[in-house]
Amino acid sequence: MKAPLRCLPAVLDRIDADLDQSLERLFAFLRIPSISTDPAYAAHCRAAAEHLAQDLASIGLAAEVRPTAGHPIVIGKGANGGGPSVLFYGHYDVQPVDPLELWDTPPFEPRIETIDGGRKVIRGRGACDDKGQLMTFVEACRAWKAVTGTLPLSITMMIEGEEECGSKNLFSFVRDNADELRRALALVCDTGMWDAQTPAVTTSLRGLLYEEVRIRCADRDLHSGLFGGAAANPIRVLAKIIADLHDAQGRVTLPGFYDGVRELPPDIKADLDALKLTPESFLGPVGLRAPAGEKDRSLIEQISTRPTCDANGIIGGYTGEGAKTVIPAEASAKISFRLVGDQDPKKIREAFHAFVRARLPSDASVSFENHALSPAIQLSYDSPILAKARAALTEEWGRKAVTIGSGGSIPIVGDFKRVLGMDSLLVGFGLDDDRVHAPNEKYDLASFHKGIRSWARILAALAAE
Amino acid sequence: MKAPLRCLPAVLDRIDADLDQSLERLFAFLRIPSISTDPAYAAHCRAAAEHLAQDLASIGLAAEVRPTAGHPIVIGKGANGGGPSVLFYGHYDVQPVDPLELWDTPPFEPRIETIDGGRKVIRGRGACDDKGQLMTFVEACRAWKAVTGTLPLSITMMIEGEEECGSKNLFSFVRDNADELRRALALVCDTGMWDAQTPAVTTSLRGLLYEEVRIRCADRDLHSGLFGGAAANPIRVLAKIIADLHDAQGRVTLPGFYDGVRELPPDIKADLDALKLTPESFLGPVGLRAPAGEKDRSLIEQISTRPTCDANGIIGGYTGEGAKTVIPAEASAKISFRLVGDQDPKKIREAFHAFVRARLPSDASVSFENHALSPAIQLSYDSPILAKARAALTEEWGRKAVTIGSGGSIPIVGDFKRVLGMDSLLVGFGLDDDRVHAPNEKYDLASFHKGIRSWARILAALAAE
Repeated sequence: MKAPLRCLPAVLDRIDADLDQSLERLFAFLRIPSISTDPAYAAHCRAAAEHLAQDLASIGLAAEVRPTAGHPIVIGKGANGGGPSVLFYGHYDVQPVDPLELWDTPPFEPRIETIDGGRKVIRGRGACDDKGQLMTFVEACRAWKAVTGTLPLSITMMIEGEEECGSKNLFSFVRDNADELRRALALVCDTGMWDAQTPAVTTSLRGLLYEEVRIRCADRDLHSGLFGGAAANPIRVLAKIIADLHDAQGRVTLPGFYDGVRELPPDIKADLDALKLTPESFLGPVGLRAPAGEKDRSLIEQISTRPTCDANGIIGGYTGEGAKTVIPAEASAKISFRLVGDQDPKKIREAFHAFVRARLPSDASVSFENHALSPAIQLSYDSPILAKARAALTEEWGRKAVTIGSGGSIPIVGDFKRVLGMDSLLVGFGLDDDRVHAPNEKYDLASFHKGIRSWARILAALAAE
Repeated sequence: MKAPLRCLPAVLDRIDADLDQSLERLFAFLRIPSISTDPAYAAHCRAAAEHLAQDLASIGLAAEVRPTAGHPIVIGKGANGGGPSVLFYGHYDVQPVDPLELWDTPPFEPRIETIDGGRKVIRGRGACDDKGQLMTFVEACRAWKAVTGTLPLSITMMIEGEEECGSKNLFSFVRDNADELRRALALVCDTGMWDAQTPAVTTSLRGLLYEEVRIRCADRDLHSGLFGGAAANPIRVLAKIIADLHDAQGRVTLPGFYDGVRELPPDIKADLDALKLTPESFLGPVGLRAPAGEKDRSLIEQISTRPTCDANGIIGGYTGEGAKTVIPAEASAKISFRLVGDQDPKKIREAFHAFVRARLPSDASVSFENHALSPAIQLSYDSPILAKARAALTEEWGRKAVTIGSGGSIPIVGDFKRVLGMDSLLVGFGLDDDRVHAPNEKYDLASFHKGIRSWARILAALAAE
């Protein structure tokens, strides 16, 4: 059935002609301050869910606002006769806007602005993350429906309202509705392009093991004048543990840590190398110059395809102004590992605990608290779906679409794989300068417009058996 | 002139006969809540100063309440014809009392209690630190005056009201009044006994170099998913520095750190060894077992006569509940060195800065803030004053008085030496279980009573040429 591909030119024309209306619909959505983490905005979150459900209904989806223990989840279903079924995931909630005084325009009064180089951008909270991104998919569906009277394939949409506060109720929702949500493939629009010209499919997400380590020595804080020299110091114990976690080459020293880490296929590595990511371009904007990871790995490998270990927080003893001569009773650190390939987070957790215990003096004890334990996600480089998506993106943007590994995690994607047995295709149009989670968030108008066209092409490619 | 020694028995009798009145005077002083660090108690601090000045006047001293930019300083002067002149230092201010709910009795309603083993104690804030201690000296003077009509030697008393909040105005007061305050010797009653049976002269106070170190890497906090692996992490930089500061033998690794550290004279070391301080007795009560300092040094050396390095505080990154995947822009630690002998705090500070800088990756910068920089204080083991004080204490307590090194600092004692060229004799009657700075502070009645008698004997010994 090649029908979808035959209709594509008309669908793309329709998208171009409808752009102003698409923007108006996005702006109406952006005006709803659906800040999920702040209970004061709960009614706005519900309003955003209802607004979205109405919009999905307007393009013929069977749409529902489904309750959870927190903010509701919007489900929209549109069936057609052919092609694979897909589950599209996005989120209608947004980050808080503070510090408000750093915004140049009110965060919930979206507008088009022209920035340096003449780029037109959509300014406002959620413009990119994730309202703008998810609406690229919705608008692509709308255009298909308008031109052909149907969707090019069977689509279920699941749009949650708690992504920015931990997706607390999404995981049980997915488990409880597994049969309803299990489709041939998940589509996610919450990632980025390589740069403003180069589209990308995110084929891997690093996993995350996040542990809090608390070292206790004496049963109370001690005066360092009286006890200094004789009392075990938990800050020193912790410092030694953190220092020992890396060797001089930047490799993580946990025994077995690199088990399951594979080398990249040569063609993928060549694609990555061809991107020529430089420390100047990647680290320079945040005030850094020198890649700090494994010395024998390129910068792009360090941030996307190699595992890491970092200390994310540490606290112990006196941290106020001035001096206090204390040897604290305890000190704690938050230590996380980004995982790739088949690294087993449980085994690494065990190895980490053993590593810490081996470095405890007799007067120190330790307790651990786990905050995250998810393996890496990897879409096979051989997947035909990946090939179709790359071809569609390459066609739209006029530049070869790359596959990239995201250094971060999208936990629900792990659940799609583990609970529903479903691969995810991650395509998004965010750019590094979108200022997501920060004041003055924006989304390039080109990301929005060509993003819609990109989804239209991807849907056509997926529908064409 | 042996007159003072001839009068001593009558003075001691007078002290015994007057004990109840001595306690009443102490209680009246303890009832004044002279908490210096809390501005709400400023009037009480002034009241305590005036109360004390009146009491000093009642024993014939020319007493004044001298203003400072903070709480006033009480000066009392009593001259006589013979003996060396001395400056007695103490403080009338006390620590805050919170958490109030942990006190078994109201902190400013002093009382006599009988505790385990039948020991009688004076309970209340300031009972030991320092009202009870300083009144041992005042009451000794009162008894001398009552029996002989004069003081046994020329005495100036300087009692400040800001010891518990940093003695902010004392140092300039001493400098501005150097001629008035410069005497042959300073006497200080703010230290402790070795144990309830064994009197002690504190002959050394460790010096203190206290540095705050701030490491900065990126110019903002980074997402560990996006930047993890490539971005320098200031917590890791700081952990490595702290870990490197000690070797496996527990020695501090700063180049030149041990310059100026001398071995103890054999007789003093023998005295210390004879005290048989055990980890069970010293570390056990705070939940520790193993001396954590230099492996080739005894516990008592570790805490009193050897230099140390400790991390007193550390903070960086996310320290709230749960997890945040951040690579922080900066991390800081408070690191202090306890110094002994002739260690030069300025040279050690320079060595520390060089040590830190040598461990900075190219993307890290450091800034330092100094919070303390004082050399150690050491009363010569050959001093005739020390011999007289030890003999007087041995006579009173029936057990050989020991010389001990205090692990902590009394900064004004350093200024007495540097600014006024004056040695200090530190004798006090505090015990390890006095709970100074904590709820339910107490002072043994025996410390108070025999403390007064001890000072009477020391004054006699100092007066007897």
